[in-house]
Amino acid sequence: MKDNSRIDEVLSTLDEELPRALDRLAEFLRIPSISTDPAYAGEVRRAAEWLCAELAALGFEASVRDTPGHPMVVAHSPRGDRRPLLFYGHYDVQPVDPLELWERPPFEPQIEDTPQGKVIRGRGASDDKGQLMTFVEAFRAWKAVHGSLPSDLVLLFEGEEESGSPSLRPFLRENAEELRAGIAMICDTGLYADGRPAITTQLRGLYGDEIVVRAADRDLHSGSFGGLAANPIQVLVNALATVKDASGRVTLPGFYDGVEELSDELRADWAALGFDAGEFLSRVGLKHPVGEAGRTGLEMIWNRPTFEINGISGGYTGEGFKTVLPAEARAKVSFRLTGAQDPERIRESFRAHVRAALPGDCTVAFHGHGASPASRMDISDPAFAAAKAALTQEWGREAAYIGAGGSIPIAGDFKEILGMDSMLIGFARDDDRIHSPNEKYDLQSFAKGARSWARILAALA
Amino acid sequence: MKDNSRIDEVLSTLDEELPRALDRLAEFLRIPSISTDPAYAGEVRRAAEWLCAELAALGFEASVRDTPGHPMVVAHSPRGDRRPLLFYGHYDVQPVDPLELWERPPFEPQIEDTPQGKVIRGRGASDDKGQLMTFVEAFRAWKAVHGSLPSDLVLLFEGEEESGSPSLRPFLRENAEELRAGIAMICDTGLYADGRPAITTQLRGLYGDEIVVRAADRDLHSGSFGGLAANPIQVLVNALATVKDASGRVTLPGFYDGVEELSDELRADWAALGFDAGEFLSRVGLKHPVGEAGRTGLEMIWNRPTFEINGISGGYTGEGFKTVLPAEARAKVSFRLTGAQDPERIRESFRAHVRAALPGDCTVAFHGHGASPASRMDISDPAFAAAKAALTQEWGREAAYIGAGGSIPIAGDFKEILGMDSMLIGFARDDDRIHSPNEKYDLQSFAKGARSWARILAALA
Repeated sequence: MKDNSRIDEVLSTLDEELPRALDRLAEFLRIPSISTDPAYAGEVRRAAEWLCAELAALGFEASVRDTPGHPMVVAHSPRGDRRPLLFYGHYDVQPVDPLELWERPPFEPQIEDTPQGKVIRGRGASDDKGQLMTFVEAFRAWKAVHGSLPSDLVLLFEGEEESGSPSLRPFLRENAEELRAGIAMICDTGLYADGRPAITTQLRGLYGDEIVVRAADRDLHSGSFGGLAANPIQVLVNALATVKDASGRVTLPGFYDGVEELSDELRADWAALGFDAGEFLSRVGLKHPVGEAGRTGLEMIWNRPTFEINGISGGYTGEGFKTVLPAEARAKVSFRLTGAQDPERIRESFRAHVRAALPGDCTVAFHGHGASPASRMDISDPAFAAAKAALTQEWGREAAYIGAGGSIPIAGDFKEILGMDSMLIGFARDDDRIHSPNEKYDLQSFAKGARSWARILAALA
Repeated sequence: MKDNSRIDEVLSTLDEELPRALDRLAEFLRIPSISTDPAYAGEVRRAAEWLCAELAALGFEASVRDTPGHPMVVAHSPRGDRRPLLFYGHYDVQPVDPLELWERPPFEPQIEDTPQGKVIRGRGASDDKGQLMTFVEAFRAWKAVHGSLPSDLVLLFEGEEESGSPSLRPFLRENAEELRAGIAMICDTGLYADGRPAITTQLRGLYGDEIVVRAADRDLHSGSFGGLAANPIQVLVNALATVKDASGRVTLPGFYDGVEELSDELRADWAALGFDAGEFLSRVGLKHPVGEAGRTGLEMIWNRPTFEINGISGGYTGEGFKTVLPAEARAKVSFRLTGAQDPERIRESFRAHVRAALPGDCTVAFHGHGASPASRMDISDPAFAAAKAALTQEWGREAAYIGAGGSIPIAGDFKEILGMDSMLIGFARDDDRIHSPNEKYDLQSFAKGARSWARILAALA
């Protein structure tokens, strides 16, 4: 930490300001900015305007920017000689149904005591207004101490994250010059399971496909045609059963091209997390890890590719029985990708495998659902080590580099469109009930989150 | 044909009576005896009473017999020294929806000229009131000529065939002594595809099962758990893909125990039918027969067992995509059985196969749906040869012994409960549109059907 960051003063200011910071967060949470429901479009805009006004009051050059959907809030701090940092968050929230399961109105936030400590409860408290405000409070305290904002900050706050971000990629393309920075800070993830601070440095990619196998031009009676006519369910089942072998390895030619083994550094970090696959599975009623032999649990969910059947349907599925040979059968499948696996090549290999399994009378149609490669951040960028050290100091526990089994599309979008890596740091906890009734955010997450960002700002100054 | 049957006079009488026979059939068809719809229960009873009155007027000792569902009509002709014959048909009909696809009201039957000849159109014309009345008109003409009914007839007409016959088996058990005969005549099948008269002498059996594979206690996100947690769809798919091998043979141990090769007599009869599997499949948009190599098309649908997946479901199957690992997956499967295959042993073998495919965390539940062995009639019974000769004479074409790929449960019930074989003879045609709008029955089927039964009565006298 350099002396000129006056970090101790900034942290003290954050601590003193906490009650008012919580008031501001509560005000933000009272705006029901549900992006998926057109009835709330005005509220989404009101949240954007509230946020824009907050930022402008801090000295940002802030604006609400229209898109074909909900607006973006973009803000800049004064130019200087720092490496530019982009901060991303979203101000829209999930719907609240089933409303009857909320113990209090979702848009009347309140601070509660719980056995685990104080929390602020309400829709969006954790996802993502509470996390987003950890940025804003860090900037505010910095300004209070230094008299000016840190220079070279770009803020991008989205209002469509909970409805699939339809406007995001076009917006990034159209405003690439304005938004490009040295690295992006994304505050939409969580602490590691046990509350340890963490930076997510790799995300699995995803290639999804829908398969429709068709045979006869109508449903057939199995008494009349069974034994002679092709059954699309059987054809589909045969194709899907042979994508993986008995050991759990995917059999598609070239599938593992680009998959990479863990570096020693990450292997050590992950081992230190003490992940217990049996304990992890026990939370959902399972005991036995599946997948490739000789791989650790974290490797399987973070660093190994998968093939999963996410949905299947065909024939008669109602009550009772119908001896039908259906005209078609469908499945939705997905591959989680790691390393440098190429989604396009895997698409080709998978589709060739399915086609090769078709008997003469069957046809197949495919409907692709996204194809994004894995994201791997370049942790040799000194910003990672600096942020890791800052998190370690703030939380009093060694921060970890972790992976994520799912995709966070924004990280891939930043890489693809703006050419920059992302640092995924967040303070949510597993029990925050995001997307569910009674969402909450721990005051500790909020307070130490803002302090963490202040430390990271200082470390990267 | 024995002289004392006066068969030529009976046939002439049938020809002369045809206009009045059609009036009677039309009267019967005007009663909307839809058994599946409780709103029509009174009409179902009215049809039973109409039929009972017809039979009583002919001299039968006839009664409407209550059951927990719709009633049975049972009738007896005077006792004599003939081998007792049971005649089975059903007086209930299918629902009529979609009503808008009918070209005329379904319960206002009318005789129409078509390019293929005259037909009577209306719900139940073919299935089964028209066919049932071929019995009744044959008895009526016989009585007109001889002054009395043929002796030793037992008539059983059901009102629940289109709704699964829930009362039939209990009724057969409770009235076994009264109903038992030498052989049953069932008029609920059709002419062979090209209009050739036929006697169905074997029916495949059926064993159906529903499989529910469960893993985690909730749906999981494939990003968080994919690669580590068991996926019930994959487990189900793997189990179902290995029930048959690449050559189409079922791999379950003991599955083919009891399957029998065709006799030379049936092989010759079937070969003479000139069945063209390619043409048969082309009607439903297919070209390529599947199934075991070296078997003819008719063997595959009539004399070889099958395994079919009739329905499958699991995970997300709506629009778009959801990267879920579901908590459960389901399939409905059925085996068509031939020869002396034992449904209970096949159930055990199939369930053992599925259980063996389960990884540690998965459980499976089964819900059996019926288990009936194949029916094979003893065609060395001279009644078969006699009926075959009578049909050949009436239709001017060699009658054939044929098989049926589906089950006709009543034949199995008669065998199991009353210990008698069935002779399945009917005059419906493939284009009768049974169960569909605009059902019809050819006047040729009706007229020659009644004449066929008169000849068979004479031949068995």
